[in-house]
Amino acid sequence: MKPPIGPTTRLCMSLAARPGTFGSRFHNHLYDALGLDFVYKAFTTTDLEGAVRGIRALGIRGCAVSMPFKEDVIPLLDGLRDSAAAIDSVNTIVNDEGTLLGYNTDYSAVRTLVEPLARAPFLLRGSGGMAKATATALVDAGFVEGVIVARNEAKGRSLATALGCGWQAEAEALTAPMLVNVTPLGMTGADAEALAFTRTQVEAAEAVIDVVAKPVETPLLRLARALGKPVVTGAEIAKLQALEQFVLYTGVRPTEAQVAAAESYALAT
Amino acid sequence: MKPPIGPTTRLCMSLAARPGTFGSRFHNHLYDALGLDFVYKAFTTTDLEGAVRGIRALGIRGCAVSMPFKEDVIPLLDGLRDSAAAIDSVNTIVNDEGTLLGYNTDYSAVRTLVEPLARAPFLLRGSGGMAKATATALVDAGFVEGVIVARNEAKGRSLATALGCGWQAEAEALTAPMLVNVTPLGMTGADAEALAFTRTQVEAAEAVIDVVAKPVETPLLRLARALGKPVVTGAEIAKLQALEQFVLYTGVRPTEAQVAAAESYALAT
Repeated sequence: MKPPIGPTTRLCMSLAARPGTFGSRFHNHLYDALGLDFVYKAFTTTDLEGAVRGIRALGIRGCAVSMPFKEDVIPLLDGLRDSAAAIDSVNTIVNDEGTLLGYNTDYSAVRTLVEPLARAPFLLRGSGGMAKATATALVDAGFVEGVIVARNEAKGRSLATALGCGWQAEAEALTAPMLVNVTPLGMTGADAEALAFTRTQVEAAEAVIDVVAKPVETPLLRLARALGKPVVTGAEIAKLQALEQFVLYTGVRPTEAQVAAAESYALAT
Repeated sequence: MKPPIGPTTRLCMSLAARPGTFGSRFHNHLYDALGLDFVYKAFTTTDLEGAVRGIRALGIRGCAVSMPFKEDVIPLLDGLRDSAAAIDSVNTIVNDEGTLLGYNTDYSAVRTLVEPLARAPFLLRGSGGMAKATATALVDAGFVEGVIVARNEAKGRSLATALGCGWQAEAEALTAPMLVNVTPLGMTGADAEALAFTRTQVEAAEAVIDVVAKPVETPLLRLARALGKPVVTGAEIAKLQALEQFVLYTGVRPTEAQVAAAESYALAT
């Protein structure tokens, strides 16, 4: 058990337009399990500059940054680590005695998880912030001949050009050894039954990445597994990026069993 | 039991040069006992303006303010309630959807606790912030012919003049129906054995107030009780002012038994 909250307790937090429960539950569960004198709390704000000033003034140890703050926060920080500089997007702030450095653990989690996969051409659907993190991680990891598939031509072309990839508005006729979904297709809600790629595309692929984390098993992942394809799941990315934040904030690396228990607790809402 | 910390959890906090444990333990114990979705954390800062900006930007519900911030915080707030305006000193901030109002629950706690006592002349030792709160509460409550006893002539005279009281550097030869100690004499530490007033003075008094909260029973209080004098203790003031903060922040008034349990837990450190 961790000690009661007191003057020595370190606060970690998150900033998002719509704060979720995953971070609070994941981090607080691990603090308890490891007996660490930390507490985690999710916040929203309409004054990003004031919030970051508060992080400095109150000595808040770390802060997860979500939409729509990931780019706007950059000029408020003292510097960027490689993971954030790679995509000009911050999802994690670490406060070292008043020096605020930005990281992007989505980018670094994707890079780690694709490491075992064969470098191959990919089709990536999506053009938002997470698509940028994922596509850049793939290219930086050595994946080649990528095609960004996005109906939003301006954003899709921009991302593709920056990475030396192609762009297509639709790609049902294309195939590639690696398929990557970074859209909400398959996510709990209106698009829960939607398949981000066709069965033909999945049959032709050698590996599938689906960044959707809820549900843990999307229709795309179920199909890919049924066809015996190796997959990287959104839940794995979410867990690994949260774990990297945890290690950055606390300096402590939990065991795999502790992380699995925290993830299971965090998802049970 | 209170719900796990999540996006809806309200944070309350304190700001002090040297944060103590009482507030964290008192408030968090009551949140647990009452099942309230709140969490309390003590902070220090070297940037008061940034800290208050963070309180606004993060929607932090309330903040206890200790030395040396009680006066400096005033221009950073949107207004003062009567308790803070009475002494130009804030020990509590309440954040109502971005509007920050200052209160002084030390002042109001003393006013409440002296209500049952006969209005009488008093000798008050001390000239710091708590002395100002206590002396002003006494005068505002109708106590008359006060004498401020303080070796610091500038601060002592200033406080006395503001309240229409007398001032004395030393007062061992004086007696009064009410004796009030607002110095560290009798506090755990170097002055633990010191008696703030002489035995003769206590014998001549009708009531004794000792603002020292640790230990709960100071030498002065033990002597006054032994002589059958009614007392107001520092522990009662600390408990009541913390309770008033709790009610301001949460809108919930705990039972006396719940408050007693929280106080007992908070002092058991």
